[in-house]
Amino acid sequence: MKLKVYADRMSQPSRAVIIFCKFNGIEFEEIKVDLAKRQQLSAEFKEINPMGKVPAIVDGRFKLFESHAILIYLACAFPGVADHWYPADLSRRAKIHSVLDWHHSNLRSGAAAFVLNTVLAPALGLPLNPKAAAQGEKLLSSSLSRIESFWLKGNGRFLLGGFQPSIADLSMVCEIMQLEVLDEKDYSRILGPHKRVQQWIEDTRNATRPHFDEVHNILYKLKTKLALQRPVQANSEMESNTKKLLPSKM
Amino acid sequence: MKLKVYADRMSQPSRAVIIFCKFNGIEFEEIKVDLAKRQQLSAEFKEINPMGKVPAIVDGRFKLFESHAILIYLACAFPGVADHWYPADLSRRAKIHSVLDWHHSNLRSGAAAFVLNTVLAPALGLPLNPKAAAQGEKLLSSSLSRIESFWLKGNGRFLLGGFQPSIADLSMVCEIMQLEVLDEKDYSRILGPHKRVQQWIEDTRNATRPHFDEVHNILYKLKTKLALQRPVQANSEMESNTKKLLPSKM
Repeated sequence: MKLKVYADRMSQPSRAVIIFCKFNGIEFEEIKVDLAKRQQLSAEFKEINPMGKVPAIVDGRFKLFESHAILIYLACAFPGVADHWYPADLSRRAKIHSVLDWHHSNLRSGAAAFVLNTVLAPALGLPLNPKAAAQGEKLLSSSLSRIESFWLKGNGRFLLGGFQPSIADLSMVCEIMQLEVLDEKDYSRILGPHKRVQQWIEDTRNATRPHFDEVHNILYKLKTKLALQRPVQANSEMESNTKKLLPSKM
Repeated sequence: MKLKVYADRMSQPSRAVIIFCKFNGIEFEEIKVDLAKRQQLSAEFKEINPMGKVPAIVDGRFKLFESHAILIYLACAFPGVADHWYPADLSRRAKIHSVLDWHHSNLRSGAAAFVLNTVLAPALGLPLNPKAAAQGEKLLSSSLSRIESFWLKGNGRFLLGGFQPSIADLSMVCEIMQLEVLDEKDYSRILGPHKRVQQWIEDTRNATRPHFDEVHNILYKLKTKLALQRPVQANSEMESNTKKLLPSKM
């Protein structure tokens, strides 16, 4: 029986799992759990993940949720996955666990709070909370600095000095990609100072093409839609900044 | 060269790592990083962990931080560690990753916010924040409910139906143990409704004795000190509730 991936491509960890499966030739059935329709809270989905979150997988009789756990499981359970995604070497594997653990309470926590409280809250029926947005930005910016000054140190182009991406690169780059839905002023202020992070996003995209852009397409469309809803001045500003920040095709 | 564990026993993940090493007969040197003196931010410690947090380990030339990553590394690197701590079986291991990932943004996040904003903040030169405390309590209580209704389901006495503890039991029970420093009213309100969680704490203590109590001794002492600083009525209330909630010796 084929692997089932329960996901919504609007969710950054869902995107990481889908890209991983596609890139590694893992056959799977993608089952959409529509977050906008709150399907993650349905009784049917809670049979898959009682916590009501995506992504989740079902492999035969085995059910699993939490995206890092899923990526590790897939890397180990499917023999075609190259070692660089989740190295067998004890020390390298330990460092990947370390950066993934760090991710939870730093990059993920900061990015999620900021994007929710500047863009997404109204769509979920919640008020925008400027104080929570400010706290989120602080954590997000310090996390991006740490990625640049520590996690991306080394000879390679990827985290922990790797020459090829690991599941941590994919998870964290997908997290950062949600910033695409910000207005251009916020986007430039937050990501602009981090050239090394921008290059790393490009390198991860290139290493997983064409799946990276295909799976992020939903986000690019939302970005365009939101940009069109903003005042004209903001749009022109966005265009020039986008060119500056992202030299290659989005 | 002996394993070095940089820790402060006032930190719950530090306690988990120390108990794990002691119980499993891993020889190590414990190097205190005094959080009250902000030693975790010293240039010397930042050579070990640039993030300025405990615990961290040095094993030969290998440095590692983040307690879950450390526990996994120790379970794999030291041959004397029994399989139940971090099972080799792919599915069981995946479930342990899942509960540890869940822990980050649920139990840990809730417990840390609540304890900081009801007890610890003044000692760290921060104001108590009742709103953050209320949010923390909400997440903490829902996490304890989830542990009881989902993670502790099954035949065994430990997480995921286990008959013996895993690194996830140790990590999460140590997290909950910090609630010992709360005043008795808060403690009873939060932990009182969760009899299954209380039993699980006892089972984990029993499974790792005498190291569990020895390593938690610093917390029991602080609990007594804080109780003596509180009004008499609160003390008598504490005594009766402690007997009710914790039948065995603390």
